[in-house]
Amino acid sequence: MNYKMIGKFIGKILLVEAVFMLPAYAISLYYHEEAAVRALLITMVITLLAGGVMVAMTRGTRKGFHAKEGLVCVGLSWIVLALFGALPFFFSGAIPHYVDALFEIVSGFTTTGASILPEVELMPYGLLYWRSFSHWLGGMGVLVFLLAVSSGDERSKGFTMHILRAESPGPQVGKLVPRMRQTAEILYVLYIILTVLNVIFLLCGDMPLFDSVCTAFGTAGTGGFGIKNDSMAGYSPYLQNVCTVFMLLFGVNFTCYYMLLIQQVKSVFRDEELRLYIGVVAGSTALIAFNLRGYYGTLGETVRHAAFQVASVITTTGFATTDFDLWPSFSKGILLCLMLLGACAGSTGGGFKCGRALLVLKGLRRSVRQIVHPGKVEVVRVNGRAVDEKVLQNTNAYLAAYALIIVGSFFLVSLDEFSITTNLTAVLTCFNNVGPGFEQVGPTCNFGGFSVFSKLVLILDMLAGRLEIFPILILFSKTTWKK
Amino acid sequence: MNYKMIGKFIGKILLVEAVFMLPAYAISLYYHEEAAVRALLITMVITLLAGGVMVAMTRGTRKGFHAKEGLVCVGLSWIVLALFGALPFFFSGAIPHYVDALFEIVSGFTTTGASILPEVELMPYGLLYWRSFSHWLGGMGVLVFLLAVSSGDERSKGFTMHILRAESPGPQVGKLVPRMRQTAEILYVLYIILTVLNVIFLLCGDMPLFDSVCTAFGTAGTGGFGIKNDSMAGYSPYLQNVCTVFMLLFGVNFTCYYMLLIQQVKSVFRDEELRLYIGVVAGSTALIAFNLRGYYGTLGETVRHAAFQVASVITTTGFATTDFDLWPSFSKGILLCLMLLGACAGSTGGGFKCGRALLVLKGLRRSVRQIVHPGKVEVVRVNGRAVDEKVLQNTNAYLAAYALIIVGSFFLVSLDEFSITTNLTAVLTCFNNVGPGFEQVGPTCNFGGFSVFSKLVLILDMLAGRLEIFPILILFSKTTWKK
Repeated sequence: MNYKMIGKFIGKILLVEAVFMLPAYAISLYYHEEAAVRALLITMVITLLAGGVMVAMTRGTRKGFHAKEGLVCVGLSWIVLALFGALPFFFSGAIPHYVDALFEIVSGFTTTGASILPEVELMPYGLLYWRSFSHWLGGMGVLVFLLAVSSGDERSKGFTMHILRAESPGPQVGKLVPRMRQTAEILYVLYIILTVLNVIFLLCGDMPLFDSVCTAFGTAGTGGFGIKNDSMAGYSPYLQNVCTVFMLLFGVNFTCYYMLLIQQVKSVFRDEELRLYIGVVAGSTALIAFNLRGYYGTLGETVRHAAFQVASVITTTGFATTDFDLWPSFSKGILLCLMLLGACAGSTGGGFKCGRALLVLKGLRRSVRQIVHPGKVEVVRVNGRAVDEKVLQNTNAYLAAYALIIVGSFFLVSLDEFSITTNLTAVLTCFNNVGPGFEQVGPTCNFGGFSVFSKLVLILDMLAGRLEIFPILILFSKTTWKK
Repeated sequence: MNYKMIGKFIGKILLVEAVFMLPAYAISLYYHEEAAVRALLITMVITLLAGGVMVAMTRGTRKGFHAKEGLVCVGLSWIVLALFGALPFFFSGAIPHYVDALFEIVSGFTTTGASILPEVELMPYGLLYWRSFSHWLGGMGVLVFLLAVSSGDERSKGFTMHILRAESPGPQVGKLVPRMRQTAEILYVLYIILTVLNVIFLLCGDMPLFDSVCTAFGTAGTGGFGIKNDSMAGYSPYLQNVCTVFMLLFGVNFTCYYMLLIQQVKSVFRDEELRLYIGVVAGSTALIAFNLRGYYGTLGETVRHAAFQVASVITTTGFATTDFDLWPSFSKGILLCLMLLGACAGSTGGGFKCGRALLVLKGLRRSVRQIVHPGKVEVVRVNGRAVDEKVLQNTNAYLAAYALIIVGSFFLVSLDEFSITTNLTAVLTCFNNVGPGFEQVGPTCNFGGFSVFSKLVLILDMLAGRLEIFPILILFSKTTWKK
């Protein structure tokens, strides 16, 4: 294990994190929020010191960086990021218990959006900003950001590739361009452009600037932290619709946008994952709208709420315009299935991912066919291209890990004596990085009632979900730490 | 597709079924149950006629029978068995709607034990017997029975093997002896011996003969139809404990009993699946008993109820001695996990199976290790022997199908507007052939409230669960029916 290189990288990540706290600090200064100003300042100093010491102590790293180290590096970086990122909430007294603060920031970085706060509007602006900004950072990946801007050892090919692979969501990371670092740059440029567009559209609907920026961060990262107690319910229909559209846009594989930019429009519209995603969104919205007839005043309002909630859940954002826990069972059932499915691979969304579901379905269809024609060799094709058997096997291994983590976490969280639906949807919504679940963790409730133990389980679930399981799983394997 | 051979086989199965209705008929005669006598007689005549016509029409079958045909044959046989087996309930008026009668007998044959009856004690004895006997038939497999006693075309090697493979539960069907037919015989002899022992032990506790036989059928098949409204709650502690022990015994891989008979005791105690099974039972019982402290009068009573319910759910039997829907969440969470896990492969129990869970876990551990050491080739071992990669792949495909069916069925059943927990546990309990779930399908409730559509979905789930998915899945594949 190349501990030095990992240590150095984590040190740099901490320096980046400290810098990223500056805007929040400025906002707190502007609003004269004394406690938040002090907390952010102390945190920045501590984080800078810790990062600086780590970088200084790890000079002269040797080369050699393997997939294993990429995964360990990503897993540890995220944990360290969260441990320091939680400090402003804790130091300011805005969240009195450290585990709660940790839950909140992990929920932020992993773009989950599950909160332990009963009254989010009581939080200082600076911390609200930090909370929402953590979504934006976590959405595309903090480490990917570092790779995009770095110029040191990180430019060595193996390193960049392994980190990018481990941090980016989806079963296969497509290189957009031959050089991985450029890929990271392109992804971030696209991400920034879309976020800015989102802010502009929100401002056009008379949303205040602060609200627009925070909402856009939550949307871009598919996070879902609201800055209002009622999430998005209080905003105008126009603003809600803007949000629906942008949530869906951020749930699309970013490769598609790159393809559009280089004018390969056809290949975008032929993309099977995108088709599945659009189909599921349209179908679910129609079914829910039909199921909800009579719940709202007009058809338009019904469709608006249905589309918003579908977009929010399938992209694993987690905003809400209405208390969908009060919807009829069929609509709730659809939302539950969407929670599991998630958005497209290579987007900022979480969940199992449409692309993986496609692979599992096609693999299963082949299994049935092979029973019928045992001799016939058949390859699984996506977008006309044959899928490597290794990818199929990995996808199945991923499903196994995915199922085991859900069952295991549900078992552990059950200790808290909430209802089965609460426990199950708490696990599903955290692990898939959605945010709200049903019953005690519904859109109008929060995660504050869980025990410290359950919160820690859910924190690990959120991290495992965002990092696609293996970077977290590998930290718990004996083999990883053996010489 | 060898339609003639399949048709002939199904015809024979119907003849066997008609003969198997005779004891129920005799019992109804004895108790002067007019409606039941008439219904059983008419059904037997119709079934004999249908079976006879099919056998007569399919003379001169050509040889050649493949895995595909084995699966189709098993899938269709079970559906036909159920369609005719439901008739006595329907004709006698004991269950006025045919779909309800079908649900009840599918629940019987698949050893699920989920009932649509609010008052089971109102049912005539003959039909109660038929209901419980269907568990016994379904437990080891009706088709396996036919193979064990048959002497015609069925003795051709490929045929027997494919049928036995398709109908027996578990990821790999071990041949006990080189000849498949003898294997079928040995399995049935063991099954009969254990069932008789069970009856004797129940009779020793002063249970009436009729109750003993029906209870033993429900236990042996791990079915769970009770003949009392309160399932097993009204029986003495001794009888409940006998039931606990025998449920657990029938959840063990029958190969273990054969090994004991041929004095390979060591290999039985080294069996990893058996160890996992015993460990999970002991652990779950201890955790639930601890969680339930204060719920019952004495420690003994608490442990008795805990052990009974654990045995009932892990073996997917579904008897109950208490309304476990009133237990605290942690205990219910454990039961929910046990529902998914199920008993050992090669037993009469359902669920995912301990053996498969072991393979999935070991496969996952290897995946993590391969990330750490990408170059190293590692085989997965169970009981010291290397597992074929094909078996691992099939197990993962099975998990994929398993997960998809649960999600899909939950989605469809949600249309009925019950709670999420009701809908989810209804699907889990039917698909895993357990019986009772939670809330509206809890131990004191029944499935009568579901719509016809949901009942049909659950019927397919029960069949898919009992037959390990593929014999049912293959019926819905286009490839199967193409020339």
